[in-house]
Formats: sequence, structure tokens, C-alpha cells
Amino acid sequence: MDATEQKRRLDALRADLERRDLAAYVIPSSDEYMLEYAPPCGERLAWLTGFTGSVGTAVISRERAALFVDGRYTVQAQRQALTEHWEHRHLTLEPPSAWLEQIVLAGERVGYDPRVHTPSSLSGLRASLERAGVSLTPVAGNLVDAAWADRPREPNSAVQLYPEQLAGESSRQKRERMAAELGREGLDALLVSAPDSLAWLLNIRGSDLAHTPFALGRAVLRRDATLRLYMSSAKLGPEVLAAFRAQGPGAISVAEPGELLAELRSLTGQRVRVDQANASEWLHESLKAEGAQLDIGPDPCTLAKAQKTPEELAGIRSAHLRDGLAVLRFLAWLEQTAPGGETEWSVADKLAELRALDVEYRGPSFNTISAFGPNAALPHYRASKDSALPLAPGNLYLVDSGGQYLDGTTDITRVSVIGAPSGEMRRRYTQVLKGHVALARARFPVGTTGSQLDPFARQFLWQDGVDYDHGTGHGVGCYLSVHEGPHNVSKRPSDVALRPGMIVSNEPGYYKPGEFGIRIENLVAVALSTPQPAQAEKVTLGFETLTVVPYERRLIELGLLTAEERAWIDAYHARVRESLGPLLAQRDQAAGVDAFLAAKTAPLGD
Amino acid sequence: MDATEQKRRLDALRADLERRDLAAYVIPSSDEYMLEYAPPCGERLAWLTGFTGSVGTAVISRERAALFVDGRYTVQAQRQALTEHWEHRHLTLEPPSAWLEQIVLAGERVGYDPRVHTPSSLSGLRASLERAGVSLTPVAGNLVDAAWADRPREPNSAVQLYPEQLAGESSRQKRERMAAELGREGLDALLVSAPDSLAWLLNIRGSDLAHTPFALGRAVLRRDATLRLYMSSAKLGPEVLAAFRAQGPGAISVAEPGELLAELRSLTGQRVRVDQANASEWLHESLKAEGAQLDIGPDPCTLAKAQKTPEELAGIRSAHLRDGLAVLRFLAWLEQTAPGGETEWSVADKLAELRALDVEYRGPSFNTISAFGPNAALPHYRASKDSALPLAPGNLYLVDSGGQYLDGTTDITRVSVIGAPSGEMRRRYTQVLKGHVALARARFPVGTTGSQLDPFARQFLWQDGVDYDHGTGHGVGCYLSVHEGPHNVSKRPSDVALRPGMIVSNEPGYYKPGEFGIRIENLVAVALSTPQPAQAEKVTLGFETLTVVPYERRLIELGLLTAEERAWIDAYHARVRESLGPLLAQRDQAAGVDAFLAAKTAPLGD
Repeated sequence: MDATEQKRRLDALRADLERRDLAAYVIPSSDEYMLEYAPPCGERLAWLTGFTGSVGTAVISRERAALFVDGRYTVQAQRQALTEHWEHRHLTLEPPSAWLEQIVLAGERVGYDPRVHTPSSLSGLRASLERAGVSLTPVAGNLVDAAWADRPREPNSAVQLYPEQLAGESSRQKRERMAAELGREGLDALLVSAPDSLAWLLNIRGSDLAHTPFALGRAVLRRDATLRLYMSSAKLGPEVLAAFRAQGPGAISVAEPGELLAELRSLTGQRVRVDQANASEWLHESLKAEGAQLDIGPDPCTLAKAQKTPEELAGIRSAHLRDGLAVLRFLAWLEQTAPGGETEWSVADKLAELRALDVEYRGPSFNTISAFGPNAALPHYRASKDSALPLAPGNLYLVDSGGQYLDGTTDITRVSVIGAPSGEMRRRYTQVLKGHVALARARFPVGTTGSQLDPFARQFLWQDGVDYDHGTGHGVGCYLSVHEGPHNVSKRPSDVALRPGMIVSNEPGYYKPGEFGIRIENLVAVALSTPQPAQAEKVTLGFETLTVVPYERRLIELGLLTAEERAWIDAYHARVRESLGPLLAQRDQAAGVDAFLAAKTAPLGD
Repeated sequence: MDATEQKRRLDALRADLERRDLAAYVIPSSDEYMLEYAPPCGERLAWLTGFTGSVGTAVISRERAALFVDGRYTVQAQRQALTEHWEHRHLTLEPPSAWLEQIVLAGERVGYDPRVHTPSSLSGLRASLERAGVSLTPVAGNLVDAAWADRPREPNSAVQLYPEQLAGESSRQKRERMAAELGREGLDALLVSAPDSLAWLLNIRGSDLAHTPFALGRAVLRRDATLRLYMSSAKLGPEVLAAFRAQGPGAISVAEPGELLAELRSLTGQRVRVDQANASEWLHESLKAEGAQLDIGPDPCTLAKAQKTPEELAGIRSAHLRDGLAVLRFLAWLEQTAPGGETEWSVADKLAELRALDVEYRGPSFNTISAFGPNAALPHYRASKDSALPLAPGNLYLVDSGGQYLDGTTDITRVSVIGAPSGEMRRRYTQVLKGHVALARARFPVGTTGSQLDPFARQFLWQDGVDYDHGTGHGVGCYLSVHEGPHNVSKRPSDVALRPGMIVSNEPGYYKPGEFGIRIENLVAVALSTPQPAQAEKVTLGFETLTVVPYERRLIELGLLTAEERAWIDAYHARVRESLGPLLAQRDQAAGVDAFLAAKTAPLGD
């Protein structure tokens, strides 16, 4: 977007500020569903500012405009939101409140759209402005939408039923289980505001979003296990409606999204669970206005959904085999081909092509991070076709990617080396691998949280005075979001215990700015240790590694591994060989994939 | 205390309830200073109920009386507070609020003494009672004190100056540093309500309490670094007063404790930092009544005090050598003597006697835990002379003890074996030792908290499905409290980073109820790793082990140790030998201590 267009869009909003007697207006990156990846119609911040990062806030006043982003996005924001129109600020160190206090006078009003903010996201700003005598005022109708003439329509993709044999639990069972949970907590209803809870609870999927098979909508679940779904009827074909009807009279009823507000009236006097993480201020305030008693707390679907059923786990294992096959073929091709004139962009295309060979493949589970050399030192790097680095000898290539399959969601990072690695690269790769293996091998009592396990993955880097500035693991859905809660493995303290069936990534890394980057990622499932230790006094859990792709032995410094670590890696590689070998096709032999698999999974030797 | 006396005391309080028109009265274990070990005059709960555990709450109504304790004290409480007069409840699972709601009617009043509760300790109870229409009412004058005819007087021991060459920082420097901290936070004054902050800030010690050299009092520190001390003038001899005067006119002034309330008036309109952890509700309310603006937050002395000066560390190292010598002599004697008709009680006497040989020894830093066999499976066991177990072959003896020395506070746990240990005892001892060594060897970047390191100490037990139900480490003062904050090493999430100079215990354990108990405890100091790792990108910290006493090699299963662990233990033992050897006296040779030291610190062999 050029400077003239940026100016035109700002001017349109400023005219609206004037009309509505607002001194300023706040535009967050979040949309109505508080999604990690909003649909195009929800990308209001990008439309206004040009900034395409995942988190940021813009504030415009009648004369000035500022964009607030965190350290990850400082450079990108300044390139995209042109400095002749936009001031640039740090989102947490120089927050919008400080900037607004200089600009807005006591008695004036700052507006926002309550449908795209959660109450907690506004509380700090509201308190600051109130101290300055400024009122933070909800405004009906989004100002960006009013100015955005060709704003895309809300996504309206057809809803698919998710097969019960894959889910392992019927929607009826799930609704009854969640309804019983409401009963235990003395609640009358649950506002289902998160699209992944909705997908899980109803055993449905959609394609309203890139990367994540959500069908956008809301629902209210009652203590009697009946559910009213607020979703455009255009999305719901006869098969889906028949499946809903088959659950019994009144079990699942459907209404248009626009009816939600009117129907909240039926919750007057009821105790309604609302999850602050994804219910907008508008939803909160509408419920309060109708006289509902809000019970702020976690949506119980989140914890239930995180604990995969045996059927889901079986599907996920299968998805990982087929995904592993694609990544194996890719790595074999890469080792034979690179550098060969390839770039970060072109090799990512090759990987996408190989994944697409699987009939259950539905697309990437997130934007592939295909990063060579210094670019791999940026954990969230995204290559573009025009600026992609060519691969060249003497450095590392990192690829973090995943697939959506009907039977599971994958996420894997591997590092390959083009030419000869430096001693430092091998030492750091081995330390990252040791941490990754320590986490994979961990055993721990029921009640242990991911934050308690996080240091196991960092300990070997710490010995050398280095670390990585991201979490070690995030939850992963089953043909749902590649990032899901409530658990994780992170430095940040968590009070969510890991439970059997939870899937989490195991992805320590190391990043040397301007030089190279390393990350090794498998998905693992929390599982009961089998057998339980002979004299165990506590129920003992561990991890089952789901991802099946070899590590890069050229980057392993054998002398740094203990005998136990080598044994674990050898056993893992043997499993990779035995799992993927039988899946190889005739043409894989011609392409050297068989030989690659055999060589990469042989015992580590001396 | 017999049943008649318990009844008499209850009746006295109940008569007072009637006079004051109270339906019930709440008696906590805490005293006016929220101390871990209250002076005798503050042991109101023990006087009333007979219960001598460290944490509990009693509530009496006109007809009923209940004692609330946690799981540690269930058995002890039922033995001490006789069930014919006292109902027994779990402190957190069946809290006082639930009990009171059954007994007290709407409109009635429940009383408490605001001097012995913090606001946060009352908030849950207050909210519950208010919902039931009951008012929780502060009452002037403690009801127990009124009934307790021979209540001991407040301790009034003489204050000693703490030598500046041991403290490493003058009181003036400390006051100026803390005053600058107040200035940075925009505060006018700090209410110094914790006796250890007072001792640290003024470089004074007292003997108002068992185990802990506090001089009870309060102070107000102003932003100009002047301090007004509220302490009985009878405690302050001419030497101390002269030292105060020498700090300049008005720098330190003294007033009687009773003047505090009147003088709080001088804080009207000022912003005063108050630490909720140890300032009573009475202090909070008195300040508010005088129009001060309360700023609730941590007393900055707590963090400053925790980071020992080089001079303090030098003294602490020296104290550990002399303390180690006493424990070494004890363990040598024990190995030669036990069982020999000795009991848990008699051997603890021997240890006390050996510690007392040191001229700087001031007494135990806490009640010694001298525990044989099944008693050692109770982490907080306390032997009594009459019921002490005799030592006998085939089990473990655990001793957790510490000393107060003018130059430092020690805390050490060692386990010895009488006769032959079982294979299980050796396996568990070795797993506990491996965890203890893993923590001792840890390196970690600046910013790491103790809760991040805690799993290192548990990991080997976790592999076997076992664990221990206490923290791994607590902070320790310098000739101050053996338990101090703000840091620790614990499962419970902490946001306090470990900083150089902080002392913490390293004490994993294992407890098999009814059979045996193991704990291995050294004190360690957080220190910069020297040298820093060659290519360190973060400032790297580690631990210096302060305690110098051999482990029990008869309990080590060598096959479970890695080469690195054996090397660490051998190096530690070599240091123990080199440190303690030269301190041995002629009579130690005769007593076989030399030979014991040589044998216990030899390389572990095969």
C-alpha cells in the first residue's frame, strides 16, 4: 500500500471521528473471535496500517496516528506502516495509554468497537484514561468497516461433520459431559465463544479460515445439555442438519448469528460461564444488560478437548506417519539437491507439493517457516518470494511446518546442513537435541505442569550460558488449531497439570543473531508410563513421541551425548525406519529416499 | 494441660464473649509480628488449646470450640486439644468460615484482635461471613491475654550491635540505599514491620526469641534516610545509643513502642510502603485512619538482605566450617557408638554439646529433627525425651539441625545408617543424592527462579514414580532467621529470580511412611559462574556449596551414578577433607574423627 492510499484510509476514519465526536479511536489486531489467524474480513489493522504481523494496536486521533507492536515486529511495522503517516511505539514499553494521555484532553472521548476487544484487553487503557478524565467509549459499528469499501464478506464455508469414529466421542456425549460439569459448578449455561470449542463440541469442522478448519459461530449450552447454535444457515447443509436432528428433539437448535443478542434475554437471572480469553466485551456487556449473572472462568471444553480420545490418538499417529513420509522425502530431496540454485521459497514449495500427495491432506496448519542461515535466527521468520535467501554451503537450513489432515494436525521442525557445519553449529545442535531428548524421556507424577518440565529442555544450553527466548512447547489440536490450550511447556508459570492424551510440541532451539538458527521439534502425547515404575507411589506420566522423522546426524557431536541419550536416539531412529520404510513407494527407491532413510536412521556409531 | 484446665480457659474466654456481645472469637497461631517462632507471650493458641504446632486457628463460640490445622498436624492436634472440648477441622478443606456459618446467626458479631492478623489472612473469612450477614469485628484488647493470668511479659533482651566488618555495609549505607529505593518508587516512607528487616537495616541483633536473634520492634524509614525506631528503651544500652548518635543528628531516633500509634499521625498524606506479609491489620488500619496513603508491596529490605555481601559470605563460609566440624565429630561418634543404647533424644544432646564447643556458637537455629526409622518418614518430626525411639540396627537415622553463629546461620541434614541398609534404602538415598548433586551443579541464566530449578532435584525420584511433598530449598539469613525470603526452590511458581549472594538450602528427600526417611541438605550460595562459559550470551549463575560434611557412602549405590556425578561427589569430599582436616584437634585423633574423615571422603572407588 502506497503513502497516498495510507493517507486516504486515515482521512476516511478521521472524518468519521469528527462526525462521532471522538478524539481518537483504537484498532486492535484481534477480530470478533479473538483468533490467532483472523479471516480476511477481520484484518482491520492490516487494512488500515499495512502492518501484517500477528499482534499490534493502532490508535488514531484527528491529527496523529500511532502503531504499537512488540519487539518481534519493530522493523516490519516501520516498513509497512509508513513513518510519514504513522508514529511507531513499543506495545508494552510505550503503551497506547501513555501516547493518548499526551494527545487527548480531559472531557474528550476515545472510541473503540466492543466486539473486537476482550474486557481484560481494555482494562489497563480504561484505568489510565479515566485517571486523566478521558472516557473510553464503546462505539456501535466499526469505523474501519465503514471506511473499507471492498471489505471481504464474512466467511461462509460449508460445515462438514467430523466422523465420530475419528472423534471417539459423540456430540451428545460431549454435550452431556460438559453439561454435567456446569451442574457441578452450579451454572445454568455456558456461552461457547471459541470456534474450536464449538467444532469439538458438535463434531463439526469448517473452512472459514486459512490453516485452521473452524466454522465460525457461537453457541449457548444449557445445563440440560441442549445447545443453541448461532451460525448462518447457509453454512449448514441437509446432512449436518439431519445429524443435529438425529440427536433428539431440541437437542441442537440453530439460529442466525444476528439472533444471538435477542436470545440472550432467555438467560436473564441465569448463571452463565463466560471465558474471558475469547468472549468480547460486547458479549459480556450484552449478557449483563439482559440480567444474566456472569461467571468468569475457563470454558470447560478447552480442558476436555485437550485430552485426546484413544480414537483421536490413533488418527493422529496415522497422520504423523504420512506427514513424516512427506518430510522424509523432502529432506532426502534437499540433501541431494541443495544448494542447486534453490531458495527458501522454492524448497518450501517442494515440501508443500510432497505433503499434497496424501489424500487426507487439507493444507498447511500454519505458514511454513523456511529459513536459511541468518534468517533461521529469527524464530518467526516468514520468507517472501522476492526476498527469499538462496541456499548456500556452510550454513543451516531450518524448516518449521505442519499439515492439517482429516485425522490429525502436525507440526515439525527439522534442521539440515548445506555443506560443512562449523563446530559451534554442531555443539549447539547437539545441546538442543539433548534438551529435546531429556524432555521426551521425562517421567513425572500426575499433577506436574509443563513449566516444571521446561528447564529439562534448556539445561544443556544453560551450561554454556545460552538459551532460547520462546516457550518449549504448545498444545496442538486434532484437525483443529495447531496452537491450543490450556497447557504448554514454558518458563512462564502455569497451574495446568499435564494429563494423559494432551498433545504438546517439544521444540527447544538456539538462535545466533545474524548467523544461524536451530530448532528441533516433535509433537508428543502425554501418556501413562507403561509399565508404571515397579514401586511407584504416584501415578507416573511420560511422553509418547508422535513425529517420525530422523534428526540430522551430520550435526550431532557424539562426544556430548550420554549412553542413555544415544540409546534413545538410536531407538527413535529404529522406530522411524520401521514405521516409514513400509510406506515408501517404488519411485522413492529411484529418488534415493530408501537409502536416505537407511543412512539417517542407522545407529549413531562412534 | 488436663481437661479441667482446658475447660477453665475456655470458660474464661466465653464469659468475655458474653460481656462483649460476641457470638464467637478467632484465635490464630500468629502473633503481633507474624513470626515463625513467636515469643512465649505470643503463643496464645497454644495456651488456649494446648496445640503446639506452628500453624493453626481456633474459633470459639458460646457453646462450641473448634481447632483448624493442616494435614501435618491432624494427629498432634487431636492429642493436644482434647476432643471433649475441641472439635477438629482441616484448616483449608473445612475452613473456619464454613464452621462459623453453621453456628453464628445473621446480625451477630464475630470478634478478632486486629494486631495478630494480616488483612489478607482475614479477607476470605470476612467475605464469607458478610455473605451470611455476620459482621467480623475488630476487638480492642486480646481476649486470651485477658484470661491468661500468668502470661509471660514481652521479651526485653538487650540489643547488640552487629559488627560492620561482618555485615559488610553500614546501617547508614543500608538506610540510604533503601531510601533511594523509596524515592525511585515515589514513596515517602517505609513501615518496617518485620524484625529481620529491622535487624538488617540497623545492624543490630537481639535475643528476644529462641533460635532467631531478633530484637522485636518497628520502625519508620523516611525518604531522607532518617529512621525512627519504636523499641523499649530498656533494650538499648549506651553503646547502641552511641552508635545511633554517631550516624548524625536525627539519623536514627528512638521512641517507646507505645508511641507508634500517635506518631503515625506524622504520616498523614504521605505515601507509605506497607508489606502485607507481616504488617498486621491494626497497622494497616491505623495508618489509614491517620490519612496515610498505603502502598501495599514488598518491604525492599527483604530482597536487599537476601543478597549477602562479600563480608557476610566470608563469615558464613567460616561458620559452616566450624559447624561442619561439629557435625563431622557427631557422625564419627555416632558410627562408633550406635545403637549402644542411644535414642533420638540422647544423640541430639550429643550434637548440641559438640556444637557448643565453638566460641561463636549462639544456639540452635531451629529445633533439631533427630529421627530414627519410621519417625524420619515425618519430615517435621520432633522427638520428645519420653517418647524418643532407641536407635537399632537395620534402619536410617536422619538429623536436620543448624546453628546460629555470630558470623552465620547454618542448616544441614545428614542421614546415617545403623547396621545394614536395605537395597531400597540405598536406591532411594542415591536418587535423592543425584537430585541434590544436579541442583548443586546447575548453571542457569540471570532471571531464573528457584521454581525453575526445583525439578532438577526431583527428576531421578520421578523416574521411579516417587517424590517428596516439601519444597527443595528455602532462603537462609546471616545470623538471622533460618527461613527467609523472598526466594526459594519449590514446585510452587515463584517470580523471584535468584541473585548472586542469595543463600538457599538444597534439600531433596524421600519418605516411606512407617518405614524410613531420607533428606540430604546443604546450604548453597548463588554465585556468578567462574569462569563464565566461553561463549556465554547471558550472565550465568550457579551455586557455591557452603556446607562441608561428607555424605554417607554406605548408602550410595555406585552403579546409579554417572561419571560426572561421581566426579562432583569426589571433588566435594576432597574439599571437605581439606577444609576440616586442619581444624581437627589432638583429641579428634584419639576419638577416631581423623580416620572417619579420611574414610568418608576417599574417592568413591568401584
